[in-house]
Amino acid sequence: MEKTAGKPIRCRAAICRAAGEPMVIEEVTVEPPQPHEARIRIICTSLCHSDIVFWKMKDPPSVFPKILGHEAIGVVESVGENVSQVSEGDRVIPVFLADCEECVDCKSRKSNLCSKHPFKVSPWTQRYATSRFKDLKGETIHHFLYVSSFSEFTVVDIVNLVKVDPAVPPNRACLLSCGVSTGVGAAWKKAKVEAGSTVAIFGLGSIGLAVAEGARLCGAARIIGIDVNHEKFEVGKKFGVTDFVNAKNCGDKPVSQVIIEMTNGGADYCFECVGLASLVHEAYASCRKGWGKTIVLGVDQPTSQLNLRSVEVLNSGKILTGALFGGLNAKSDVPILLKRYMDKELRLDEFITHEVKFKDINKAFDLLVEGKSLRCVIWMDNE
Amino acid sequence: MEKTAGKPIRCRAAICRAAGEPMVIEEVTVEPPQPHEARIRIICTSLCHSDIVFWKMKDPPSVFPKILGHEAIGVVESVGENVSQVSEGDRVIPVFLADCEECVDCKSRKSNLCSKHPFKVSPWTQRYATSRFKDLKGETIHHFLYVSSFSEFTVVDIVNLVKVDPAVPPNRACLLSCGVSTGVGAAWKKAKVEAGSTVAIFGLGSIGLAVAEGARLCGAARIIGIDVNHEKFEVGKKFGVTDFVNAKNCGDKPVSQVIIEMTNGGADYCFECVGLASLVHEAYASCRKGWGKTIVLGVDQPTSQLNLRSVEVLNSGKILTGALFGGLNAKSDVPILLKRYMDKELRLDEFITHEVKFKDINKAFDLLVEGKSLRCVIWMDNE
Repeated sequence: MEKTAGKPIRCRAAICRAAGEPMVIEEVTVEPPQPHEARIRIICTSLCHSDIVFWKMKDPPSVFPKILGHEAIGVVESVGENVSQVSEGDRVIPVFLADCEECVDCKSRKSNLCSKHPFKVSPWTQRYATSRFKDLKGETIHHFLYVSSFSEFTVVDIVNLVKVDPAVPPNRACLLSCGVSTGVGAAWKKAKVEAGSTVAIFGLGSIGLAVAEGARLCGAARIIGIDVNHEKFEVGKKFGVTDFVNAKNCGDKPVSQVIIEMTNGGADYCFECVGLASLVHEAYASCRKGWGKTIVLGVDQPTSQLNLRSVEVLNSGKILTGALFGGLNAKSDVPILLKRYMDKELRLDEFITHEVKFKDINKAFDLLVEGKSLRCVIWMDNE
Repeated sequence: MEKTAGKPIRCRAAICRAAGEPMVIEEVTVEPPQPHEARIRIICTSLCHSDIVFWKMKDPPSVFPKILGHEAIGVVESVGENVSQVSEGDRVIPVFLADCEECVDCKSRKSNLCSKHPFKVSPWTQRYATSRFKDLKGETIHHFLYVSSFSEFTVVDIVNLVKVDPAVPPNRACLLSCGVSTGVGAAWKKAKVEAGSTVAIFGLGSIGLAVAEGARLCGAARIIGIDVNHEKFEVGKKFGVTDFVNAKNCGDKPVSQVIIEMTNGGADYCFECVGLASLVHEAYASCRKGWGKTIVLGVDQPTSQLNLRSVEVLNSGKILTGALFGGLNAKSDVPILLKRYMDKELRLDEFITHEVKFKDINKAFDLLVEGKSLRCVIWMDNE
């Protein structure tokens, strides 16, 4: 194979040219990595709900044309200057949230919000206001969440790359790139679910199921799943869900009242995994006075507001917080989760409901939009 | 002295007959305690801002006529049936928040919100929908916060009584009945302020100063006081305030921007001690992404709402919570604080700016309303 380092690579990518329109697989050129960047050959990628959100979103921060995809695994093809952490041939997982390992926040281990590279929805690479992608007409194609994995090759900043054990099957490992890590991390690191406790999960999509899996690993005694689709209960059981509340069948009672009655006063931990302010309110109302924690994980519209009565915040003593990427520090925590998978503690296989070839990427979109898939792995054909 | 147990006692009380009108000292009868209650001779009482709030409040849950006062210390005169925890002659501090020591919440030590006797603003004693007070015309006089200490004698439920060491001077000990405990507890038990951390306190009244004192005891490195009255800074220094921000002198910058710049990213802990939703928003904006905690202590209007952007709760990872009585479990934690006072660790003397006789109780109201006092101790003349 011809040496490609330092030269543009021509390869195939699925380009999103307009909101809601099918991806078009085209030839693109991928520039060499700049300092602190690596160029990655993607092995496989999976589709996450945030891809759907930014596929449908017409207005900023959504931009077009762009290459979506942010759950993936790949191999380092080449590195830019000042890159010592990874080198050619390393197996890596890209993560949208930076972990510089140097700033006070990354070093604290109390936070996963890097202050040197704060998270924002940017159309560029992490460190430069530029793109590495062009189509064959020379037009700039934008990046997405610093990853853009719906391409045979992509360029990612080293603060967004986690070096991983190549022994882990790539279609399992890639799940820890975003969604499953978010849910498991939220239970394990952000909420710090205690053994014997009661957990309520609002929304049993992949994130909600990953929260259940995290809560199960933490030893939660009772894991209540709340959804409007009864089929989710059977799926949830695989991840430790012990009780199901169908929000459609609560009659005149708010869901929170049902949860309070089931738990004799409220759940110890409530997770909102849909992205609706009204559900955050229900989750907050469902958690126990004095120590109940509500953790927001769902991505709502940018203008959406939570409205809480001041006196309830004061009098209830409840805790409200949120977590990007489940509060995980990517470089140290993702390898721990991969090891727990290899040790047969963490369940990942059950999340994969579908696998398709890259050329069929639009099928992966259909399956997720129709609620038929949890995770659909998209294999690049270059393996 | 004639034995009074089992009989009504006739004594003097300061009655609040209409919103905002001066207290009138009248003769009242105080019925004997019912089961689980004790009748207390008040030694001294101090005036807390919540007394002012319910003195001015015209509408429910405010009722008239009533006997205000809820920061106090007294001696048990007699007890009702089923009372074994205290007996005649015991020195006791009444606390508005019940500590039954039996329910799952009180026993947990993670919560101070008793589920057997949940807090509400009630016109009666804790356990019965009745009053123990009548005026000389036979009209019922209502209780306030289960304490009503602006009376020579009052009746309090045993879940609202803490037995204390009579060696502590009563005009110091009474401060731990509400305000100072709330502030110190919020820093110590609810926020769990870490040594070396940075604290921002919005409002340097007694609660805010008590938060500073609690943060100082916890070893906070920097304690920033925010107020609109520059004189508060000199007062604050006595309680460990290291930096002062005059919210009036921030120009075009929101206070939160000033705090973020001073702390290079936000305070570790922010306390709202005024009771204004807008200040809670500033406090939340002032705390550090990733691990900052905002603790609401101020009592706002019942209809007041907090409006937070969903995406900020998710993306910032900040924690929002509140604390009644600073998260303290009255029966176990108040004696700890009293011991720390006697051991010369906790400062209480500096809170007492005025002392008056019971007949001058309206002067105590004037001083607090005019912002001239921190704590004014009101001595019953029966000592």
